[in-house]
Amino acid sequence: MARIYNFSAGPAVLPVAALQEAQADLVEYQGSGMSILEMSHRGKEYEAVHNEAVENIRKLLNLPENYAVLFMTGGATAQFALIPMNLRGEGQIADYINTGAWASKAIKEAKLLGQVNIVANTEHECPTRMPDASTLKFTPGAAYTHITSNETIAGTQWRSFPRPESPLVADMSSDILSRPMDVTQFGLIYAGAQKNLGPAGVTLVIIRKDLVERASGKCPMIFRYKTHMEENSLHNTPPCFSIYMLALCTRWLLNLGGVDAIAKINREKAEKLYAAIDASSFYKGAAVKEFRSDMNVTFRLPTEAQEELFVKEASTQKLKGLKGHRSVGGIRASIYNAFPAAGVDALIAFMKDFEKRNG
Amino acid sequence: MARIYNFSAGPAVLPVAALQEAQADLVEYQGSGMSILEMSHRGKEYEAVHNEAVENIRKLLNLPENYAVLFMTGGATAQFALIPMNLRGEGQIADYINTGAWASKAIKEAKLLGQVNIVANTEHECPTRMPDASTLKFTPGAAYTHITSNETIAGTQWRSFPRPESPLVADMSSDILSRPMDVTQFGLIYAGAQKNLGPAGVTLVIIRKDLVERASGKCPMIFRYKTHMEENSLHNTPPCFSIYMLALCTRWLLNLGGVDAIAKINREKAEKLYAAIDASSFYKGAAVKEFRSDMNVTFRLPTEAQEELFVKEASTQKLKGLKGHRSVGGIRASIYNAFPAAGVDALIAFMKDFEKRNG
Repeated sequence: MARIYNFSAGPAVLPVAALQEAQADLVEYQGSGMSILEMSHRGKEYEAVHNEAVENIRKLLNLPENYAVLFMTGGATAQFALIPMNLRGEGQIADYINTGAWASKAIKEAKLLGQVNIVANTEHECPTRMPDASTLKFTPGAAYTHITSNETIAGTQWRSFPRPESPLVADMSSDILSRPMDVTQFGLIYAGAQKNLGPAGVTLVIIRKDLVERASGKCPMIFRYKTHMEENSLHNTPPCFSIYMLALCTRWLLNLGGVDAIAKINREKAEKLYAAIDASSFYKGAAVKEFRSDMNVTFRLPTEAQEELFVKEASTQKLKGLKGHRSVGGIRASIYNAFPAAGVDALIAFMKDFEKRNG
Repeated sequence: MARIYNFSAGPAVLPVAALQEAQADLVEYQGSGMSILEMSHRGKEYEAVHNEAVENIRKLLNLPENYAVLFMTGGATAQFALIPMNLRGEGQIADYINTGAWASKAIKEAKLLGQVNIVANTEHECPTRMPDASTLKFTPGAAYTHITSNETIAGTQWRSFPRPESPLVADMSSDILSRPMDVTQFGLIYAGAQKNLGPAGVTLVIIRKDLVERASGKCPMIFRYKTHMEENSLHNTPPCFSIYMLALCTRWLLNLGGVDAIAKINREKAEKLYAAIDASSFYKGAAVKEFRSDMNVTFRLPTEAQEELFVKEASTQKLKGLKGHRSVGGIRASIYNAFPAAGVDALIAFMKDFEKRNG
């Protein structure tokens, strides 16, 4: 059985080189006589892995000294609660921009814990889109402003970020490290690893160091960013293997030339696929063109029955995971950093053939 | 390089068979054309793994229908906060028994969030011990009573559990599945996986189903046991690979004959090692005999310099991870379920030889 093309939205395809290295070392890690899965998180072997993971992130994002890299758990969903718990003071308002399913989940959790102002709402627009950043009216004195940089389900992506006065907080789970950006625009960036960083099990948090002081004394110790920052994410046992895989995947990205290099590749993959969609009247892009995501390409076929057949037939040709999210239907091709360009070509060829037979 | 004997307190040794199976399948999982690390948590392959992990736990613990198995993240340390957040009502008192470093951490977090009554305290006793269960005075109307079934650092273990009126909550991180027990004595059991269940990254929670209703509407959704129970721990992306490894490790344990079989093996390993300690005047057990742990065997040598030499020399003979926790010093041999009996024999032989040369 050869490897298939895995268009899954997450957990998602990983670099083959990283998988092969992990496989080779899995029972006995580099002459240590044990697996990385069995190692104390206080030992020198794991420490080297942990620190490489931190350093790779710092290099790839060109992080200034006043930002910390944290490895946490619970995915973006845990951050939906931890952000207001840590950053919003008693009685303060936090600004949120509702751009779809993921932003909406973040808002729901933040509302449970305190006051939220919805600055803009494109959640139910069709075709899907991000708001016009120039028209946004932020709340004076807001604790922070929350955005979702890429909506995985809608297939939309902020092309340039809003610039509120309050610290900008971004869920970048599905596009972190996919394109160059200026981290200093943000107060906090978070990302579940399982799309563009590694496997599920670890959550990356990048935080401007001064912000960790905001948490109140009532916030549990384990849920304070400060706790994790002060102990280099080793306050308690971290998800060691997921961090190890993240180290291997980010090492692969560095070897490839870093974020600039992968952004060019990502752009080419996405442009090719969108061009194939636009060249046909059979396929129809789900997102407004200027907000189309380079990571999650969403499109529709004339009927749901055809969409179902499309997913089924593609699956027999080693093109897997193309079914759109159950909440919206349609087709979704997730083409993260590790997704090979050859897989996009194979999908386009299949699309042409399918249209010929069913169009 | 052959595999060494890994006495690490956690992350700790895993069954070789589980590691080898994971290695064989790591790049292409069972004809799926992708790694288990890359699979959607909503796909049929991962679903089978997830459900096997749940079922294995149910079988091994003989769980009644009114108990749920949850897979969460953040380790026992996150549970230190989640337990009071979920189970203690406004103004209610929770009873805690302080038996050492781990119980003490649980207490610290619980105190931050509300009222705690310390029912007994053996934290600073030397030799280390558990309290006498028959003398405990619980708080009438307490929300729950919290114990640490095995103190990993002190090397002590409850032999029979206290029987408060309030639901008994136990941190079993370091002795879950190591000995038979009646789960119905407990309201909630939790365990970081990285000692006796699998690798770091997943936390097992076993909860009596009625208790999930206690969480207030102010508790973040992601931190409610109810959320995870209602969605079979798939509310958001779980730590898939750690759960996969837990499934393999628990399958190994079932094949071995389950908890009764491993308890016998564990008892033999521990008795042999304690007998070697007691037969010598050079080595001295750190715990009171009746509370000695079968999982973490702690002992001292006449001087700290000798202890340092012991750890160093042992390490050159493939006996690794014997250094006691940095907070207490001494020697600690962690001999969890997956630790081979041959490793205990090798340690005893080394101890005799070391004593001959240094005693």
